[in-house]
Amino acid sequence: MVKIVLRSKYVYVPGLVSSILLNLLLIINNYAGAQWIPSRGWSSRAAAEAEAVAEIGCSGHGISYLDGFVGDGNEPVCECNTCYTGPDCSHFIPQCTANADGGDPLFLEPFWMQHSTSSALVVSGWNRMSYNYNDNNVFSQQLESLIHKLHAFVGNAITRNRYIVFSAGSTQVLSAAAYALSLQNTTSRSPTRVVASVPYYSLYKNQLEYFNSEKFKFEGDAYTWKNRSDGSANVIEFVTAPNNPDGRLNEAILDGPNVKTIYDRAYYWPHFTPIPAPADEDLMVFTLSKLTGHAGSRFGWAVIKDETVFNRMVTHIQMNSLGVSKDAQFRAFKLLKAVLEEGTGIFDFAYQTMKTRWETLAATLSTSNRLSLQNIIPQYCSFYNEVREFSPAYAWLQCEREEDKDCYAVLKAANIIGRQGNVFGSEGHYVRLSLIRSQDDFDILIERLQKLVSEEDGTRTM
Amino acid sequence: MVKIVLRSKYVYVPGLVSSILLNLLLIINNYAGAQWIPSRGWSSRAAAEAEAVAEIGCSGHGISYLDGFVGDGNEPVCECNTCYTGPDCSHFIPQCTANADGGDPLFLEPFWMQHSTSSALVVSGWNRMSYNYNDNNVFSQQLESLIHKLHAFVGNAITRNRYIVFSAGSTQVLSAAAYALSLQNTTSRSPTRVVASVPYYSLYKNQLEYFNSEKFKFEGDAYTWKNRSDGSANVIEFVTAPNNPDGRLNEAILDGPNVKTIYDRAYYWPHFTPIPAPADEDLMVFTLSKLTGHAGSRFGWAVIKDETVFNRMVTHIQMNSLGVSKDAQFRAFKLLKAVLEEGTGIFDFAYQTMKTRWETLAATLSTSNRLSLQNIIPQYCSFYNEVREFSPAYAWLQCEREEDKDCYAVLKAANIIGRQGNVFGSEGHYVRLSLIRSQDDFDILIERLQKLVSEEDGTRTM
Repeated sequence: MVKIVLRSKYVYVPGLVSSILLNLLLIINNYAGAQWIPSRGWSSRAAAEAEAVAEIGCSGHGISYLDGFVGDGNEPVCECNTCYTGPDCSHFIPQCTANADGGDPLFLEPFWMQHSTSSALVVSGWNRMSYNYNDNNVFSQQLESLIHKLHAFVGNAITRNRYIVFSAGSTQVLSAAAYALSLQNTTSRSPTRVVASVPYYSLYKNQLEYFNSEKFKFEGDAYTWKNRSDGSANVIEFVTAPNNPDGRLNEAILDGPNVKTIYDRAYYWPHFTPIPAPADEDLMVFTLSKLTGHAGSRFGWAVIKDETVFNRMVTHIQMNSLGVSKDAQFRAFKLLKAVLEEGTGIFDFAYQTMKTRWETLAATLSTSNRLSLQNIIPQYCSFYNEVREFSPAYAWLQCEREEDKDCYAVLKAANIIGRQGNVFGSEGHYVRLSLIRSQDDFDILIERLQKLVSEEDGTRTM
Repeated sequence: MVKIVLRSKYVYVPGLVSSILLNLLLIINNYAGAQWIPSRGWSSRAAAEAEAVAEIGCSGHGISYLDGFVGDGNEPVCECNTCYTGPDCSHFIPQCTANADGGDPLFLEPFWMQHSTSSALVVSGWNRMSYNYNDNNVFSQQLESLIHKLHAFVGNAITRNRYIVFSAGSTQVLSAAAYALSLQNTTSRSPTRVVASVPYYSLYKNQLEYFNSEKFKFEGDAYTWKNRSDGSANVIEFVTAPNNPDGRLNEAILDGPNVKTIYDRAYYWPHFTPIPAPADEDLMVFTLSKLTGHAGSRFGWAVIKDETVFNRMVTHIQMNSLGVSKDAQFRAFKLLKAVLEEGTGIFDFAYQTMKTRWETLAATLSTSNRLSLQNIIPQYCSFYNEVREFSPAYAWLQCEREEDKDCYAVLKAANIIGRQGNVFGSEGHYVRLSLIRSQDDFDILIERLQKLVSEEDGTRTM
């Protein structure tokens, strides 16, 4: 028996007739250009729609989406990258501003386009409707098992016999950790002091100040509190390693019996840093965003040693959003499966891309005596079994001239948008430039920087 | 040119050769039972996997999932409903406990199985990787437009010229609303008083007490604060209509210049209640969970009149989780498109299911003089253009005997798990029974209740 599909309906025909019918179809397909698409069943319409949208050409400077912009006839149309426009995104906008602000990890988009089969996801209408998985868990045990495998493969974290909590990106799990550790600090009635060493990722500050809990208070730079004999105060230190913005493998500044540390390990992947050894801290935070590039999925996780802290963090996620979207968990499951299937594939791609970008940026600024980059010494990487350069996610740019107090304004005048140093608790001589955005964004950034450097009075000679 | 796919690789062959090849394939398919599946491209492997998993028979008492339980050979196996077990979930567990606790809306699962084509979703590996949509929005404008259309079609809410904020289920948007309205109450330095009329959905209390902000404090029953001459205090009242647990179309208890009201409209769909008129309150909350049954997706939204409140709520979602999972938004987009394609389909299905369940429950308890149900008077429904009975999501069961102070224990002794009345700020004579769970859960609940009623001394005669 052979299935032939005409307009999504199955027709069952016996052998000989089917040969004739199929030959007829061949003739129609060959000479009339008709669309008789063989189909498997309930997913065929959705698959045909998704593949048709993927075929829309946007000149490599845009993408069409099923839930995106539509034309007059309600058909999906190209959504162009910054600085490109036109129906197929082929038109470059010459005077446009280089966007090097946010941490959108679109540098990994081409990797997934090259691995479309292993990463494709088909979801039935009745998939995972419940609040819980069948084992009454709000987190997918299959996904947790993949996360364990991945950390073991990369060797960037010890997760054996550790608890894992999922969240809506690292954003949600960072506040879950702060709440959980503040609750643990019950010896004092005064709010827990939360600190991070400058320059720090501004979300820590913004989030805690926004939630405005009686339990904690953001108190700025960790260095300020070092060697202070205020041993009774409860403290939480955020340690970001590699650091956002400067890529350094930060270590904790404070210690003592009343100090708890949250390690933000979002960037601790071979993409951005050598991996000297697997991290093994009490509380480590990771995110899909900086691993596979799927920032939009909002999926993160924490690896935790203490059961009470783990339980409190689960409570936080429950109170906050009754768990984590099953759709995000399913997507993460499929993506991590694809990552593991491809061996070192994604790491090779990501490292090569980031290293090339860093080298290009460094070469561009090498003749400047006005702008300089952070300098990080190469280290041994246990994943690649060799000494490797850093390939940081961000440039921590310094305007070296005394009068360039507002480095952000210097760049803005050159048509570049970065992120101001004082956002990170630092000073105005610094600006963070994102290197993980799309290739288009990076190329335009380099072009603008080249122009800025070439216009310097008395640039350095090589 | 014809594409023939052998193990996912395209082979391009000219007309005549292709006829011969295809005929060869036919012979192989007919006589050797081989699996030569015609394919379209990158989605074919995922589609074949998803359809194969959907084919696994679980006797109607379970489902297999790609990210779910696996057997010895790592193949997906059945995940059985409560009270069923065995490889194909065909074995009933006679003494098992009827679970009528949580609000898992699995009564809609069969609807989606019947509408598998319109609700299927295919997601490419590179779909929506960014934090934002192309228009720099964190929320999908296409999805927002579907939400407007849906409310207009059902007539349950005025959304024209209103702002819409998305969230991880209604859970996240309820606290976003409380934060936003507390910030608005800036005339007083004392915390905003948050209230809800008893019986109330316990999440309001639990959530605010957990977040422990200096800005607000949960103060219990709204009736307690009625007609109190404390006109200067800032108040937020949660109004749940239809109410969880008792299904009543609650109205606000408090008013005045310092009172803000959050209308939880999660159950304001023809599934559960007649729709007397479109709701048009300042701040209304909805959720996909109680509309399509996809609780696991964690997707909710609020309809807001005031721009400042809207902006504050967007800030809350950003601080909390940097937006809402694009995967959840894409799923919601596909599901709402399917809902609109099917006309009154889902509403007819949901209303008939809930009405039949309510009638079955009422008949079961009709001879009892120990247990009674809430009584709600029928109303005119503008969606169906006729007077309709309520078909509530929950039974608000009362143990009528003085000695049955712990109604939960009475039911527990009869092998039924409900939710205790005092969870809702009410007393122990009451228990909430969920009527929106799977058909299996409902059937077992009825069986256990029948037994309990039949064992009563002196049951009422009809």
